[in-house]
Amino acid sequence: MVVKIGLLGFGTVASGIPYLLKENYSKIATLAGIDIEISKVLVRSMDEANRLVSQGNNYDFVTAIDDILSDDEITIVVELMGRIEPAKTYISQALKAGKHVVSANKDLIAIHGQELIALAQENNVMFAYEAAVAGGIPILRTLSESFTADKITRILGVLNGTSNYMLTKMVEEGWTYEKALSSAQALGYAESDPTNDVEGIDAAYKVAILSQFGFGMAIDFDSIEHRGINIIKSNDVAIAKELGYVIKLVGDLQETHSGIWAEVVPTLVPVSHPLAAVNDVMNAVFVESIGIGQSMYYGPGAGQKPTATSVMADIIQISRYLVDGKAIKPFNAYVRPSQMAKAEEVSSAYYFAVEASDQPGQLSHLAQLFEEQAISFDQVLQGKADQGKALITVITHTINRKQLADIMLAIESSEAFILENCFKVLGE
Amino acid sequence: MVVKIGLLGFGTVASGIPYLLKENYSKIATLAGIDIEISKVLVRSMDEANRLVSQGNNYDFVTAIDDILSDDEITIVVELMGRIEPAKTYISQALKAGKHVVSANKDLIAIHGQELIALAQENNVMFAYEAAVAGGIPILRTLSESFTADKITRILGVLNGTSNYMLTKMVEEGWTYEKALSSAQALGYAESDPTNDVEGIDAAYKVAILSQFGFGMAIDFDSIEHRGINIIKSNDVAIAKELGYVIKLVGDLQETHSGIWAEVVPTLVPVSHPLAAVNDVMNAVFVESIGIGQSMYYGPGAGQKPTATSVMADIIQISRYLVDGKAIKPFNAYVRPSQMAKAEEVSSAYYFAVEASDQPGQLSHLAQLFEEQAISFDQVLQGKADQGKALITVITHTINRKQLADIMLAIESSEAFILENCFKVLGE
Repeated sequence: MVVKIGLLGFGTVASGIPYLLKENYSKIATLAGIDIEISKVLVRSMDEANRLVSQGNNYDFVTAIDDILSDDEITIVVELMGRIEPAKTYISQALKAGKHVVSANKDLIAIHGQELIALAQENNVMFAYEAAVAGGIPILRTLSESFTADKITRILGVLNGTSNYMLTKMVEEGWTYEKALSSAQALGYAESDPTNDVEGIDAAYKVAILSQFGFGMAIDFDSIEHRGINIIKSNDVAIAKELGYVIKLVGDLQETHSGIWAEVVPTLVPVSHPLAAVNDVMNAVFVESIGIGQSMYYGPGAGQKPTATSVMADIIQISRYLVDGKAIKPFNAYVRPSQMAKAEEVSSAYYFAVEASDQPGQLSHLAQLFEEQAISFDQVLQGKADQGKALITVITHTINRKQLADIMLAIESSEAFILENCFKVLGE
Repeated sequence: MVVKIGLLGFGTVASGIPYLLKENYSKIATLAGIDIEISKVLVRSMDEANRLVSQGNNYDFVTAIDDILSDDEITIVVELMGRIEPAKTYISQALKAGKHVVSANKDLIAIHGQELIALAQENNVMFAYEAAVAGGIPILRTLSESFTADKITRILGVLNGTSNYMLTKMVEEGWTYEKALSSAQALGYAESDPTNDVEGIDAAYKVAILSQFGFGMAIDFDSIEHRGINIIKSNDVAIAKELGYVIKLVGDLQETHSGIWAEVVPTLVPVSHPLAAVNDVMNAVFVESIGIGQSMYYGPGAGQKPTATSVMADIIQISRYLVDGKAIKPFNAYVRPSQMAKAEEVSSAYYFAVEASDQPGQLSHLAQLFEEQAISFDQVLQGKADQGKALITVITHTINRKQLADIMLAIESSEAFILENCFKVLGE
């Protein structure tokens, strides 16, 4: 017996699949309980097909999705095209045709996942997407299979390899944001339009998906606040270091009494925190729960082989179902009604970088503004005045989001101060 | 419908199970697809039973294993007694009685696992033991479910929380071994007889189990070389630090062309390596593989709630099988013939601390000994002479185990030198 796969797209990740099938042939066949074979591959044009064939890719390349949908021997469709369309249409059609689907498409799943999950259930097929979050890290299946008896209270993730590479260079080598971006582009980590990476959008997609697995809640992508590393200034990096922190782009999901809070923001991470040691393009997901306590899952967030390994793990799981002929379970079976947290229940320490004109009494004036919002200081640093301006940096004790909004407004409306930056600060 | 559990033992870990069942009642019932209930609990005496009842533990305590074995309503037996006997007999009897078994007993599984796994298969029941390795870290299920398409080449683990706590204090606070041990005992991390922890035996049990999941090979416990942190001297810690390393007790499994190599030894870990940041009682398993590349799984290695969470994950997985009425799969389905590596195929850099009498030409004499074994130096450090003795520390380039044995012998047979210590050194 053979499980036949239809591949949609044959880019970098897809071409990692034949590599694994070849290198690990006997392990895969043993664990799947059946041979797995790439049957047809959808590409955009016959020109592309001919080029791929001439490069030694010996597959049945097709240019029409119907060639795959109407092939009854193909039981699993693997979508590796990326972006929303035509991927969404093709996946929907495959699910409706009774085919199991594996995808690594985080944008699509973050935005339209609920619709596709429902479609899979209606058609009694599996829709799996381990590779959509943190590439090679097997985090979704772990949340789904191993946190079954646990209650997760918070998930913190370094989820964008490009941003993390850039920040690592900015922290360790003192590079500017611009230099780090050029380097990331030269190395192929960042696209020519880096918006999704540097504005935190890509990480927010992953946060949306993690929310389902960690908290059983499908949250609207638009309700995830996101800011990216493009707002970080060089002196933020240096000052953070002086205060005992590194800046990371951290996806944060936490559950309060009133509901769930999700955001992706540049965050000061204490050097002793496990996430602080996650460098270069590596990703990590740090989980806080009432059972296990603190655990972390670390690995490559992208790349051909890591992503293909996650895709193959999905394919093997589905193959096992096919061999056993047993009822299909959803990839994530933990589902609760979604409920967003009230702002006043979400709290953290914060870092404020405030520019003040170099006059006596400015620090006590600023302290008074904070005091009016009942906010106390954990650390204060006043830089040397430069051209009549001084930078005052403050790390507060824990405040809630309401206090945060109020103090930001108070600083911004004050004539004496300019709020240069404000970042969340993690505890140890 | 209800899945009824028979608990063997009601110590620290066991009493974490009612906590999880209560706190996460609805999540557990949803994911298991059925209610899970503790039915009977085996304790040593009615005195113990009465004491537990008076403490508010409202279970049906029994003192004879037959009360559980003969109860047809009990489908899962959970063994949390520890040690070899009577746990081994009870588990065997339960498997023969057609009951699924969950255990956290690493000693037993490392030494007699193969026999129990075979017994489970003969009786078509499941024998699961996620909690036996690295307590709360869901590493076994992850290796079993998510590395299905990957080939693991090496597993490095910080697997003994007690040793890691002690080493963290020795490295960060400069404590002596003796002071660290007293503190670990006072905190309840180490037993009054700490042999299993400080001699690396406990970590070697876990290495034996990891070998099955990571490499498909059941290795004889006696073939795992193990040395513990009790051989580390204070100046080793300080010198390692000076050279850019921290000392950790690392379990190491690697596959070479000829087979597998397994050992647990104090190891110099570069400060930039993810394992270097694993401190206090935390554990971590670092995996190198051809697909994912490098990944790490970090969390608490012991403790009531983390361990109970892993035990419950096993119980829930078995409950799902019961609900689906589907064929039982072994906890680890990856099985290959075991084959040990040849010594000359296993290589690493090494740290040597050598005492020499304070005479001219000693360093070049030592260098000559290494040269005769074709071993070159990466770093050399000569300490100040003290009472006519000088300590020379060397970190070599990569050498194989044959060279290692030869150079150790050469130093030991030399009249000019005393080999104070020799540790493995990890690359970055």
